[in-house]
Amino acid sequence: MQAVPKALQKLVAELAKLPSIGQKSAARLAYHLINGHRKQAEDLIAALSSALVNVRLCQRCYFTAENDLCAVCTDVGRDPNIICVVEKPTDLIAIEKAGVYRGFYHVLHGLWAPLKRQTLADLKLDSLIARVSSEKIKEVIIATGSTVEGEATAMYIARLLEGQGVRATRLAQGLPKGGELEYLDDVTLSRALSGRTQI
Amino acid sequence: MQAVPKALQKLVAELAKLPSIGQKSAARLAYHLINGHRKQAEDLIAALSSALVNVRLCQRCYFTAENDLCAVCTDVGRDPNIICVVEKPTDLIAIEKAGVYRGFYHVLHGLWAPLKRQTLADLKLDSLIARVSSEKIKEVIIATGSTVEGEATAMYIARLLEGQGVRATRLAQGLPKGGELEYLDDVTLSRALSGRTQI
Repeated sequence: MQAVPKALQKLVAELAKLPSIGQKSAARLAYHLINGHRKQAEDLIAALSSALVNVRLCQRCYFTAENDLCAVCTDVGRDPNIICVVEKPTDLIAIEKAGVYRGFYHVLHGLWAPLKRQTLADLKLDSLIARVSSEKIKEVIIATGSTVEGEATAMYIARLLEGQGVRATRLAQGLPKGGELEYLDDVTLSRALSGRTQI
Repeated sequence: MQAVPKALQKLVAELAKLPSIGQKSAARLAYHLINGHRKQAEDLIAALSSALVNVRLCQRCYFTAENDLCAVCTDVGRDPNIICVVEKPTDLIAIEKAGVYRGFYHVLHGLWAPLKRQTLADLKLDSLIARVSSEKIKEVIIATGSTVEGEATAMYIARLLEGQGVRATRLAQGLPKGGELEYLDDVTLSRALSGRTQI
């Protein structure tokens, strides 16, 4: 609209580019920051600038890092024979939070998703294969999600690793904790059945 | 988590302070900006900084402005006898978009909402009363929303204006366009009935 200052229109446009933020939310955020919460806006600028300068990708596993290597890769107490492959940094954090995995990681930064114009060349795959041979990895856990893209990427990586003398595994699929059978979809139920374990 | 760089943690914390953005969304936005879209992050910093410098509140109606007065207040083609009182700048934009109102505005920047710790002193009320007498206003349209806070604020303003020789009006309440009677709530239906107009 004519009446809105140009600098504000530009801010709304920039905010609307963020994932899952539409035009209306962007306008609300912009007015929130500029009208009532200028200190918050200044803090956000500072935090964003600082993160741009101080955060980079780990040169080994591509997780976020403050230095050349991330906090996981510099952790000497981990099992050096396992790599867990994830789609994105937040997946790594989710696994770390669970607190049961003590190996290293490799962040793909995407999935094989032709419909979203994400090709295999966009993923950190070459470096994964290089690590598997140079670091003498025994097992690669392919922990991509259980979506079409996640499964396709996992299958592709498993093929790549064939004949490299490394075991490629996939996360188990089945009932979530607290899950009730009657509400479960067919695919999950059939996978839970075929993957049943002895008690 | 330990593994996340401090600068990134700080960015997530700042983003999570924004309205309707939770911890998970904040983390997703932060990784989006820092890992894959650094140019976008730089543009956002620039837009936010520019808006902080170039956008202020109109000294007359408290809408956003580039100079002392906003684009509405400097528009000479408007009816100088009517003020439309709204809660926030985006409400003004919504009314302007409808394209039927040609008077001036007054933005309260809040509502009387004790439960949200927003008192009458936080609203731009004194300046409204001052404008009504100094600008020889004939009608004040109190266009706050139809919520408990919106109604309470409207009633309070109407009381303030009593005896000032000015007509205080409220937006009509009734069926929205395309609204079906069977899905309408009781309050709206009864207001639509009591506010019925001759055809």
